[in-house]
Amino acid sequence: MKLYEGLADYLRQRIEQGFVAGGERMPSIRALSREHGVSITTVQEAYRQLEDAGLVESRPKSGYFARLRSTTPDLPQVSRPVRRPIEVSQWEDVLNILGAEAPSKLFSLGHAMPDLAGATLKPLLKLWSMQARRSDMRGLEYDSLRGTEELRTQVARLGDHSGCQLHPDELIITTGCQEALFCALRAVTEPGDIVAVDSPCFYGAMQAIKANDLKVMEIPTHPESGLSIEALELAMEQWPIKALAVTPTCNNPLGYSMPDSRKRELLLLAQRFDIAIIEDDIYGDLTYAWPRPRTIKAFDTDGRVLLCSSFSKTLAPGLRLGWIAPGRYRSQVIHNKFVSTAASSTLSQLAVAQFIAEGGYERHLRKVRAQYQRYRDQMVSWLEEHFPPGIRISYPQGGYLLWVEFAREVDCVELNRELSDRQFRIAPGVLFSATGKYRNCMRLNFVNGVDAQTEEALCVLGDMIRQRYPD
Amino acid sequence: MKLYEGLADYLRQRIEQGFVAGGERMPSIRALSREHGVSITTVQEAYRQLEDAGLVESRPKSGYFARLRSTTPDLPQVSRPVRRPIEVSQWEDVLNILGAEAPSKLFSLGHAMPDLAGATLKPLLKLWSMQARRSDMRGLEYDSLRGTEELRTQVARLGDHSGCQLHPDELIITTGCQEALFCALRAVTEPGDIVAVDSPCFYGAMQAIKANDLKVMEIPTHPESGLSIEALELAMEQWPIKALAVTPTCNNPLGYSMPDSRKRELLLLAQRFDIAIIEDDIYGDLTYAWPRPRTIKAFDTDGRVLLCSSFSKTLAPGLRLGWIAPGRYRSQVIHNKFVSTAASSTLSQLAVAQFIAEGGYERHLRKVRAQYQRYRDQMVSWLEEHFPPGIRISYPQGGYLLWVEFAREVDCVELNRELSDRQFRIAPGVLFSATGKYRNCMRLNFVNGVDAQTEEALCVLGDMIRQRYPD
Repeated sequence: MKLYEGLADYLRQRIEQGFVAGGERMPSIRALSREHGVSITTVQEAYRQLEDAGLVESRPKSGYFARLRSTTPDLPQVSRPVRRPIEVSQWEDVLNILGAEAPSKLFSLGHAMPDLAGATLKPLLKLWSMQARRSDMRGLEYDSLRGTEELRTQVARLGDHSGCQLHPDELIITTGCQEALFCALRAVTEPGDIVAVDSPCFYGAMQAIKANDLKVMEIPTHPESGLSIEALELAMEQWPIKALAVTPTCNNPLGYSMPDSRKRELLLLAQRFDIAIIEDDIYGDLTYAWPRPRTIKAFDTDGRVLLCSSFSKTLAPGLRLGWIAPGRYRSQVIHNKFVSTAASSTLSQLAVAQFIAEGGYERHLRKVRAQYQRYRDQMVSWLEEHFPPGIRISYPQGGYLLWVEFAREVDCVELNRELSDRQFRIAPGVLFSATGKYRNCMRLNFVNGVDAQTEEALCVLGDMIRQRYPD
Repeated sequence: MKLYEGLADYLRQRIEQGFVAGGERMPSIRALSREHGVSITTVQEAYRQLEDAGLVESRPKSGYFARLRSTTPDLPQVSRPVRRPIEVSQWEDVLNILGAEAPSKLFSLGHAMPDLAGATLKPLLKLWSMQARRSDMRGLEYDSLRGTEELRTQVARLGDHSGCQLHPDELIITTGCQEALFCALRAVTEPGDIVAVDSPCFYGAMQAIKANDLKVMEIPTHPESGLSIEALELAMEQWPIKALAVTPTCNNPLGYSMPDSRKRELLLLAQRFDIAIIEDDIYGDLTYAWPRPRTIKAFDTDGRVLLCSSFSKTLAPGLRLGWIAPGRYRSQVIHNKFVSTAASSTLSQLAVAQFIAEGGYERHLRKVRAQYQRYRDQMVSWLEEHFPPGIRISYPQGGYLLWVEFAREVDCVELNRELSDRQFRIAPGVLFSATGKYRNCMRLNFVNGVDAQTEEALCVLGDMIRQRYPD
């Protein structure tokens, strides 16, 4: 292998492993020459190779830059859920993916657990530890029903990023976003009511719908623009829909963020039919583009939006800290919160409030946003490389989850079962449907991004699909 | 004042302030003589005085002992709740006592917060702090839906104390006892069903009943033997009661523990009418007598008892850690737990599990049980001293709550309102009724036991009652 080929290989790996993000400047020719003890010409030759391979581009007077992914992958098709209100099933599948009955140390490509190993989380742990030892032992006390003032103040301040002017008194701290969603649903519905959701839809929201004896009306979504407002309007004309539960920013599982204009339209529609909107913004702060998109809540003029979120995806799920801005449903939500858990963990609240106040949250976000964006590009490349041709892949605008759609005959539930001998798991698409649709889809996380274990798992999975579905 | 009178006064205070518990040995004559620099005769004279006052008793060859309270106070009357299924109201009163809208640093005689200042809790804080800094950062991860194996193992082991043979897999960790009660209620009822409760009844359970569109059938209770099984049987013959929710050990608010035989009878009755029993055992480990009484769950043969408990009263409420042993309703409870909060705080679980494993929990219990028993006696004495004659006081067998019943015209809601200028609060009896009964009753805690602030508050309250209700 020639010298320049070796160097080109090295640089290619740096890009492919995500150490250099798309759009980022590559090391200068002079620096590489010094660092690797090779001539200027050799470095130039290496860059020429990479340029030919479409991995870098030269910009006059600025040097070489890693290329942004110029093309989005083949996106999944617009979803086609059942076109009538139905009951939610799929609990057994959810229970299975949660590993509730047989918890294990399996490597999971299906779970939505953020990266917890980064240095920017360390200060939070330190604060947590300090709060545990404060002499007034406030961490041991019952917290106020609405949450500590410290945390509500910080969460209200963070609302600015999404265009939300919130007063701390408008917020209620919850035990994760799940409790926020649960309290919100119970506040705006009666048993038997119909709730519209984006489809595919987060299984936690759908199981909460099931638990409250509600019916679900799944609305088609486009993999880039999100929920079809036209389909929703049609559904609302046909059925007495009581509320809409959506994840419009960094959608789980598809990753899209609805444009502001579509969010505004959604709100107008909700106003016209006088329904409540339960907005799940749990991944919202993880959008790659900053400033982040607005929430629907940012446009809310009459308190019909119940904004639900949490630190489970941005910081750590073990904190069990979420919040809700319930608008006009405040008093009902407070009652719901009281009867379900009375209060949330005081100590976690104090630690997180201090972490935000000291700038740790925003520092952490800056880091993980860039990291997850690199990982996304890597993941998409790997999928295109290791999976059979013809697959469709969502192209997330934030977060660390994507959606893969295979040919119709591929059965991801079956694949997952086969994987039980291997050391990892996926989240089959059926979890995100009320009736077990999306069997040929799966949700993958790219939290672990560039590591060898992830690529190995994708190779195994790719081979398995090729063997099982040979054409 | 003579020398012996001064010494007698000093010893009286020690007893009254709870530094010497009923039944405990007093300092020896020799030791007091040395310590106070007085003659043996002076000490003997002092003890004679105390003996005459009924505060100590001499036992041959053993010395002097602080006297156990020989008489229970005048107990409250058997409760007489409404004799038909009704809807629960009183939410506004509950919200008020919770201080949700205007949290404040008021001294509360009504709140059920345990003593958090003791030395035996310190090791827990240390473990908490250590767990926050462990390098694998497990405290940040999603916990398994059912709770960490570490904590379930320890809770199962503790079950032995109450005669319960539980396997860790039979337990589900919850976010406090409130979530356990909520999940239990939802598992065994449908909207519109009737749930029987002991009356007066913990308001958290009743508000959960309200939130689930259930009706409540309040059953009379005796201040010593607890729920009237005869009244319950009558009610079950008349109404289609679906479940029974009771706190049979260290009852909140009355403090009684139902005898084992009554618990067994209750279970037989539940079997005969085929209903579920939701057993709240949150104060159970705080019974003064040890070994502690059995739970109803200990007698359960067919899985119809859902045992709910937590560390909120024994350790600290800020932990937000409870559990449920749901018997035959396990799968429904798991679904309910998932939709309400998905998981509980991992870090708290790890810290508490280690605290129990290292013997810290049992050490702490031994200490606070003795402490709360002393405080009870002190509290009863103070109430008899500072409150108008004719009041009735429950005589708790565990925990740190008691119930005071005044003459019919006394309005504790009104008293509490008047107290808003003062720096403390009580819990008016209406909170513990579905319909605002028990207005002439209040629940007091004696967590702070022997401190001057508590006695001062009782004096203020006593004066207020005397002024407002002069006969």
